[in-house]
Amino acid sequence: MILCDIGNTHATFFDGRKIWNLNIDEFNLYEPKEKIYYINVNERVAQKIQEPLFIDIEPYINLNSTYIGLGVDRAAACYAINNGLIVDAGSAITLDLMANGCHIGGFIIPGITTSLSSLKTISKRLDLPLNSQIDLECLPQHTQDAISYGIIKPIVSLINEFSRGKSIYLTGGDGEFLSKYFTQSIYDRMLIFRGMQRAINENKEILC
Amino acid sequence: MILCDIGNTHATFFDGRKIWNLNIDEFNLYEPKEKIYYINVNERVAQKIQEPLFIDIEPYINLNSTYIGLGVDRAAACYAINNGLIVDAGSAITLDLMANGCHIGGFIIPGITTSLSSLKTISKRLDLPLNSQIDLECLPQHTQDAISYGIIKPIVSLINEFSRGKSIYLTGGDGEFLSKYFTQSIYDRMLIFRGMQRAINENKEILC
Repeated sequence: MILCDIGNTHATFFDGRKIWNLNIDEFNLYEPKEKIYYINVNERVAQKIQEPLFIDIEPYINLNSTYIGLGVDRAAACYAINNGLIVDAGSAITLDLMANGCHIGGFIIPGITTSLSSLKTISKRLDLPLNSQIDLECLPQHTQDAISYGIIKPIVSLINEFSRGKSIYLTGGDGEFLSKYFTQSIYDRMLIFRGMQRAINENKEILC
Repeated sequence: MILCDIGNTHATFFDGRKIWNLNIDEFNLYEPKEKIYYINVNERVAQKIQEPLFIDIEPYINLNSTYIGLGVDRAAACYAINNGLIVDAGSAITLDLMANGCHIGGFIIPGITTSLSSLKTISKRLDLPLNSQIDLECLPQHTQDAISYGIIKPIVSLINEFSRGKSIYLTGGDGEFLSKYFTQSIYDRMLIFRGMQRAINENKEILC
């Protein structure tokens, strides 16, 4: 069984053993040889996923939530977790709170790379690389640290504030990097696929 | 006496009574009739400020700080305050901590408009206007609130975390808007000019 999470820039595949990526142009040329169980947030693949081997999992992710318009990738990650804060750190970072299998709500902040790029648009003086070793215990004393601190500190503070003693589950491209700021976080690059797998397991008779 | 704070997009003037703006193109065509005491962070006006009526205040802002490369506008705002958190909320937001007349350090985060624009670059779904009435006490339940919360909440949390009971001084284009999130903040659109005025007062014999 092949699972596929189609995002804004890439489609990520999982075959039960390994994970691999295609960019969206490559995905649109991809000719699968077996069923692809997918979720999708990208309009650019609308035609491709009409092909018969592509099966949309979205209708089977029965997340208990009052949130209107929750992205299916967020819903899938949340569907994998009963209790905890789910952080998907990519070009945007989503934070969603799950309690007793219910989605309590969540929000969206610009991701690390997105924030860094946005500062460049303001002034050449702010066009500096991230100091990924920034010490969050000391107030910065020069510009590179000031922007690095200003990007990472709010993310870390928000995660600490919203986890409130609950488990922190991190996924996405910057999930592993962010996990080092928390003593008790769980980095799980498979989180979205786990939610998809749960939806498939619950609907085996229809889907398999 | 006319003071002028030349920023990335505008030059802001203060004549002791009123404040007014010119954009940078207008500023480069501006022909003053009296001395203009200025600070400047914009390379595009380098030639203009060579003219004889323009007097640079930067060398007279003797801020006690170990920070390397502090923007002169940040230094001027800090120079107006002995104790407290200084927040200049424009296209970027700077947070600087002053204690007993010493600058302890500070950092830079993308401003409200900058963050909102950066989300648009990720996905059309995130191209939504800010809900400026967002309730920070409730977790969002739809996308517009999720991005509004995700932009404003980290700014407010950081300001609360760093003020640590000290006074909060807000200035800049979004300073007044942000001030409503704090019971004890001071919005002062004149903050940078107050710091410039202090530098001038301390060096009257040279400058006036």
